[in-house]
Amino acid sequence: MDIKKELGKLKKKIDPEIEKVLNEAIDNSREEGELITGALEQVKKITLSGGKRLRPALMYWGYKGMGGKKEKDILETVVSIELIHIFLLIHDDVIDNDPQRHGIETIHHRYRKVGKRFENIGKNSQHFGNSMGIIVGDIVGAIGNQVIYKSNFSSDLIVKALKRLQSIVATVAIGEAQDIIIEYRRKSSEKEVVDMYKNKTAKYTIEGPLHLGAILGGAQEKDLKNITEFSVPIGIAFQIQDDILGIFGSEKKIGKPVGSDIREGKQTILVIKAMKNADKYQEKRLNFLMGKEDITRKEVLEFRKIITETGALEYAKKVAEDLIIEGKSKIDKMNFNEETKGYLVGVADYMTQREL
Amino acid sequence: MDIKKELGKLKKKIDPEIEKVLNEAIDNSREEGELITGALEQVKKITLSGGKRLRPALMYWGYKGMGGKKEKDILETVVSIELIHIFLLIHDDVIDNDPQRHGIETIHHRYRKVGKRFENIGKNSQHFGNSMGIIVGDIVGAIGNQVIYKSNFSSDLIVKALKRLQSIVATVAIGEAQDIIIEYRRKSSEKEVVDMYKNKTAKYTIEGPLHLGAILGGAQEKDLKNITEFSVPIGIAFQIQDDILGIFGSEKKIGKPVGSDIREGKQTILVIKAMKNADKYQEKRLNFLMGKEDITRKEVLEFRKIITETGALEYAKKVAEDLIIEGKSKIDKMNFNEETKGYLVGVADYMTQREL
Repeated sequence: MDIKKELGKLKKKIDPEIEKVLNEAIDNSREEGELITGALEQVKKITLSGGKRLRPALMYWGYKGMGGKKEKDILETVVSIELIHIFLLIHDDVIDNDPQRHGIETIHHRYRKVGKRFENIGKNSQHFGNSMGIIVGDIVGAIGNQVIYKSNFSSDLIVKALKRLQSIVATVAIGEAQDIIIEYRRKSSEKEVVDMYKNKTAKYTIEGPLHLGAILGGAQEKDLKNITEFSVPIGIAFQIQDDILGIFGSEKKIGKPVGSDIREGKQTILVIKAMKNADKYQEKRLNFLMGKEDITRKEVLEFRKIITETGALEYAKKVAEDLIIEGKSKIDKMNFNEETKGYLVGVADYMTQREL
Repeated sequence: MDIKKELGKLKKKIDPEIEKVLNEAIDNSREEGELITGALEQVKKITLSGGKRLRPALMYWGYKGMGGKKEKDILETVVSIELIHIFLLIHDDVIDNDPQRHGIETIHHRYRKVGKRFENIGKNSQHFGNSMGIIVGDIVGAIGNQVIYKSNFSSDLIVKALKRLQSIVATVAIGEAQDIIIEYRRKSSEKEVVDMYKNKTAKYTIEGPLHLGAILGGAQEKDLKNITEFSVPIGIAFQIQDDILGIFGSEKKIGKPVGSDIREGKQTILVIKAMKNADKYQEKRLNFLMGKEDITRKEVLEFRKIITETGALEYAKKVAEDLIIEGKSKIDKMNFNEETKGYLVGVADYMTQREL
């Protein structure tokens, strides 16, 4: 199972549906003024320029796995989860102050530039940009919700799915809040970090989309519970792998400069474990290097060495491996057809195969 | 019909329902950490400390007006529109940089203070506060949506209502964007301002809630169209009255210092009209006074004089009066019972009776 290839094939079916929804929103916005239309065109650019469509793919597989047959309807409906993801990313980019997403200018960043024109009247273009980011995110969230309301599934199934969808949104927003609190506060426990991973990644990226699709395919409470048992460990493992890559990965693998996570002072279970096991000197060096904006290549190597020597790397790898084994062991009892189970094994294996 | 008294009576029934939903959210959040719980407690304080509940009241009357009989169910469900309003206000307060709402500290402002604790590690507490405002707003929006999903109405009615609800959210967000664009750009046409009023106030505050309630009460397309014909002129008139009060109202009436709108340089149809009719000297003075942070009492009086002498005040009053007459003339053909029609007359009259 080459899951990357499978995701690529599905993306080719999903992207035209996303484009259709955004084109309609762009057309409808023309009477509201060119700035709104321009903002939605930027949303379309950002959305279609990248992303693996993992969430809509899992929703699709969840539906098909339950025996769902309405190919066209489900492809139209999975657009909702991707647009809700984009809405959250737009807000996330404001929060993280990121100028680009998939190499395309983020909304708030673009409107900071637009806002420059207004600076002669003493207005703050940065705040204008951030404000547009907040509002445009809200608009995209509303469009994402509308996609599911307008879908061809029965009202009973839609309402059942919606209850899940909004609890996904609330959960990921809680995870986001936990994330920035952890980032700003700096002193967190392993439990707090894992809890944040559960909310921000496991429930949002894996469990939520599978639940949505399965519900539209007729899943019952018991089926949903089995999905949770698979999703939570796999999602947490995914995030831990991400943290390992963030410290040890090459620039090519992680798509950002080596040591970015160290420079940002990111709190991960690796860092927490290393701090706990460190001797006096190692602790001093970790504190010095964490968040050091002008960290050198040599210092990155030193940081890695401490993470390794304190046993934190080995520990994190072990935790992730155990979680993946736990998650995979739950696949068998899931009420999905064999094809979907195969995809889920593929997703789980993908976590372990991501190289440094 | 003393509409303020009627609203007061209804608020006493609605507020306990709002409190119930927020208490449940607060309880559920306890395992997510005290900062999340604290944020939701602040949301509850802000929500319950003020507001007329005009939107849930209109939703309630829309339902009852169509002959709806499920008193308990509709009172539980109108909470959704109020919470969605709160979600948008939380974002609005970040955008407008307002420290208080109903005399209670706003979310982003409170978390700026919390963020102060983190400043020793070089983090920006203002950005932390704004980030929390964005995220907590998103959480409250999700809770507001959940209220309607979980309501006791049939799935068919819920889905029908939801399609309206999200188009309300998209519309008000578009109005918000138009508003800040108008504010930052400074040069707008009367049409642009009226269009923004339509999106930000008329459709959101009047039409949307009436539509939602009416749909749950079994309204058909034609009924909704009649509601629109009443709501749009009344809502725009409401906003124009607000602008007149903003320039001519006493501090007691408008709840903010005299001249605030002038100090903010707020673009209204009064200002646009005055600029158009002004002679060279008046134009120069308007430009000088608009946005003047340290405007004096004497200058406020001068500003008012120019607005009056250019005919802008008379013009705005006339436009508002004509819109109210237009809106009221549509009440008769609405498919509502007499009681609800009476409330709508009361709402329309309230617009004209707000004194300077």
